[in-house]
Amino acid sequence: MQINTPTDALSALVHELSRLPGIGEKSATRLAFHLLNADKEKVFRLADALKNAKEKVHLCSQCYTYTETDLCEICASPVRNGNTICIVERPSDCRAIESSKKYTGLYHVLHGTLSPVEGIGPEQIKVFELIKRINEQKFSEQENSEVVLALNPSVEGEATCLYISKLLKPLGIKISRIAYGLPMGGSLEYADRGTIGRAMENRVEC
Amino acid sequence: MQINTPTDALSALVHELSRLPGIGEKSATRLAFHLLNADKEKVFRLADALKNAKEKVHLCSQCYTYTETDLCEICASPVRNGNTICIVERPSDCRAIESSKKYTGLYHVLHGTLSPVEGIGPEQIKVFELIKRINEQKFSEQENSEVVLALNPSVEGEATCLYISKLLKPLGIKISRIAYGLPMGGSLEYADRGTIGRAMENRVEC
Repeated sequence: MQINTPTDALSALVHELSRLPGIGEKSATRLAFHLLNADKEKVFRLADALKNAKEKVHLCSQCYTYTETDLCEICASPVRNGNTICIVERPSDCRAIESSKKYTGLYHVLHGTLSPVEGIGPEQIKVFELIKRINEQKFSEQENSEVVLALNPSVEGEATCLYISKLLKPLGIKISRIAYGLPMGGSLEYADRGTIGRAMENRVEC
Repeated sequence: MQINTPTDALSALVHELSRLPGIGEKSATRLAFHLLNADKEKVFRLADALKNAKEKVHLCSQCYTYTETDLCEICASPVRNGNTICIVERPSDCRAIESSKKYTGLYHVLHGTLSPVEGIGPEQIKVFELIKRINEQKFSEQENSEVVLALNPSVEGEATCLYISKLLKPLGIKISRIAYGLPMGGSLEYADRGTIGRAMENRVEC
């Protein structure tokens, strides 16, 4: 079942599906046959959802999570706690933290962590955008202002936490990081909401 | 992360992805975020492959497998062995058997098995189309004509084998079924090609 040259529509579909993460050639073939057997309307809805999401969704101009408007829902919300910014690696981490319902502040998505080995320095992630945001909004002058570091508990995550807390400390902002109740080497995205909620409650000052 | 009302493009995409077989809400969310992060071109290629496959692919007028032409590649091929018809449940089973490279005849896809419990009788599957095909092509008059039953080793599969062999026996056609080297209760689609090849070689006359 080697598909090197996708010449027909079915093979092309299998080929495109098998390029998704966690979907091998057998799963892709199974999915493709399922889709051929499904209602045309359902398949077109999926195809349109793909294009639609890709066309409409871009990064929030303030926190860099995914949004369809200039400011994301959370940044634009009047009820969110504007004096707390939670720093995460990925937009999906915002969603994971939101699901715990233990956090009411804003976010800032770095889109990665520092990794000298992979050549990822501060310029490659949204660190300077964070500093700029904090300075422009006079964040440190706000009452009870706090930055919560919620990066994945990996070597790169911890290094990035250290880097950001060193950058922000001189500005007189309270900096905390979520409790690493998360298993080391694990991924925030896969943690259950209970664990994420606990980690958010038990955050400790750096 | 409950998604009951997909109001935005991202949630709509997660919703559509989570309706695929074997993809739960977490996998769907992960896939959606992966796709938002991927090249626009790649995502559009997948969306187009979906629509294209669904629009172009239909059933072969002779064997009822998926094809983009009137007759599928196998039915139209001059090198395939026209005096052997292999009966399978699903188009994906043709692909699985092809991958074993042990079969050079034609196919007939039933699109199901007899299942009185689920109300699936001979009219709901392509049994009468098989009889019609065999009669019209004077299949029984051909030299060494043979029908190979390659249904999944399930109760329904075996009942369907029995039903078809009873229908075809009076026509004087040799009927065999693939050896059940496949584990009982398993699925042809998931078997490795070695096992499928063995089962094809060891087919026994009914």
